[in-house]
Amino acid sequence: MPDNPEANDRPVIAVSDSPPAWLPEAISAGGCQVGPLADADGYVHLTGPASLPHLPARVRWVQLPAAGIETYLADGRLDDRRVWTSAAGAYSETVAEHAVGLLLAGVRGLVVAAGLRTWRGKAVADTVSGLADTTIAVVGAGGIGRRVVEMLAPYRATVIAVNRSGRDVPGADRTVAAADLDELWDQVDHVVIAAPQTSHTVRLIDAAVLARLRPRTWIVNVARGGLIDTDALVDALAGGRIAGAALDVTDPEPLPDGHPLWTTPGVLITPHAANPRAGLEAALADRVRDNATRFASGRDLIGRIDLTAGY
Amino acid sequence: MPDNPEANDRPVIAVSDSPPAWLPEAISAGGCQVGPLADADGYVHLTGPASLPHLPARVRWVQLPAAGIETYLADGRLDDRRVWTSAAGAYSETVAEHAVGLLLAGVRGLVVAAGLRTWRGKAVADTVSGLADTTIAVVGAGGIGRRVVEMLAPYRATVIAVNRSGRDVPGADRTVAAADLDELWDQVDHVVIAAPQTSHTVRLIDAAVLARLRPRTWIVNVARGGLIDTDALVDALAGGRIAGAALDVTDPEPLPDGHPLWTTPGVLITPHAANPRAGLEAALADRVRDNATRFASGRDLIGRIDLTAGY
Repeated sequence: MPDNPEANDRPVIAVSDSPPAWLPEAISAGGCQVGPLADADGYVHLTGPASLPHLPARVRWVQLPAAGIETYLADGRLDDRRVWTSAAGAYSETVAEHAVGLLLAGVRGLVVAAGLRTWRGKAVADTVSGLADTTIAVVGAGGIGRRVVEMLAPYRATVIAVNRSGRDVPGADRTVAAADLDELWDQVDHVVIAAPQTSHTVRLIDAAVLARLRPRTWIVNVARGGLIDTDALVDALAGGRIAGAALDVTDPEPLPDGHPLWTTPGVLITPHAANPRAGLEAALADRVRDNATRFASGRDLIGRIDLTAGY
Repeated sequence: MPDNPEANDRPVIAVSDSPPAWLPEAISAGGCQVGPLADADGYVHLTGPASLPHLPARVRWVQLPAAGIETYLADGRLDDRRVWTSAAGAYSETVAEHAVGLLLAGVRGLVVAAGLRTWRGKAVADTVSGLADTTIAVVGAGGIGRRVVEMLAPYRATVIAVNRSGRDVPGADRTVAAADLDELWDQVDHVVIAAPQTSHTVRLIDAAVLARLRPRTWIVNVARGGLIDTDALVDALAGGRIAGAALDVTDPEPLPDGHPLWTTPGVLITPHAANPRAGLEAALADRVRDNATRFASGRDLIGRIDLTAGY
């Protein structure tokens, strides 16, 4: 007699090889049971696209571990025979906080200050500006972008959100549709990039855009390195055409030793560290539990990937 | 015949030697007129305590340029025969923004990241934490502290304000009276210091307090260096007992070359740069104009110094 007479009714979810302890716990807490892939109704994948196994037809749902899934798409691993979910939104809190930290570090002169070994008050003060009375574009208004908008609310800046639809983003002073983005570049002081990388957004920040930004501008990127044309960025920074770039992501990534971005003035790089591992696992466990609960009761899943839109 | 028949009724305000152009403009805009010290009803001082002139008895008001006036008090230059006003509150916006930037730079691992010349993702990620689910003490709830509390509101942290009275500070989750501060140190993850330096607050953060803080703690100081016992801070940081200190002010200041703070891990120093000169002059001009307007019409002045309280 089974310990739990209802266990056989629970959907079976298979998991990546050598799963961490929190994964079966999250699946059970969501009202599903862990089982072999051959019997599985769903599958939770914790590693990259190359290790994605062959999925039987009966697997109706796959949970991926990343918020950005462009590498899975590029590898052609996402078919239309089941529902795929990303972790989009699960890491919004920590990544949004990181984005605001990077922006403030830039405008407050902290990048220059961090290297000081002598009291050079004027040299640092000359690099300090503020967010008050500036205009900040937040490109991408998913979970991260919306939280960035909320975190920027107290600073007496004008915050312009950019999303696909142009529908008003709560808390933003104005929302601009991505199709109208070109009008925006002459109006902004700072740019925070929090958009998915798709065929529409790759190299969104290129030489032409950089030429229209202001000398005081800081660019923050917490999304994907490919949204910025790296060579054009290095040129703009080296020429003093913008003030700086604070990047959690780069293209290429990892950024190789000796790459000019490492030594270009006005660059701050956190090596894909906005979402530290401890918090990542807790956030992903929450997401797996929530989606398992929804899957078991037939409800819509969070983070469902739109294969046509590419995120 | 005078250009302006009302000019003789306007209070006469004397100014420091070689005043910048904005100063007489601010005084005129406030409905007063600039005149010699011998005829003056008020006086605006732009430099330090040593250059304060002898003031005739008829000078009923003196505006000082700094928000913190402990050096004027220490030099015994503030008498009780007139009203003295500091610039307290005039620089709150920029200094509060700087304080939040310093705190985020600390918790997000930016101090470590700023020195990177190679991709060390894990090394940085291990230093990254977040403000969510932490408790942050904001010590001092004048203009700067109140704005810091507002700027911390979006982060899902518990914000405890500390002021003299213990009266609730708007936006803080809890307000603690300075007299009860000792109970606080075991409960907080991060400390932002925005209090005036007085005989009650000097070396507020000493070895005993540092011993009670947590290994993850960042201390931010945008007030005066003397509120922290520097030697005890260096010991606590070198021993890994707290995570870091992000300081716009130090004791001694300027911090001499070779001082251990320059090279202690976990230290970020902006050399008294929270209030950059361009913004400083604009903010002080606004304050002079506002107080001149109030002086001309006999209203209470902003930033009136309480000689007993010491700020």
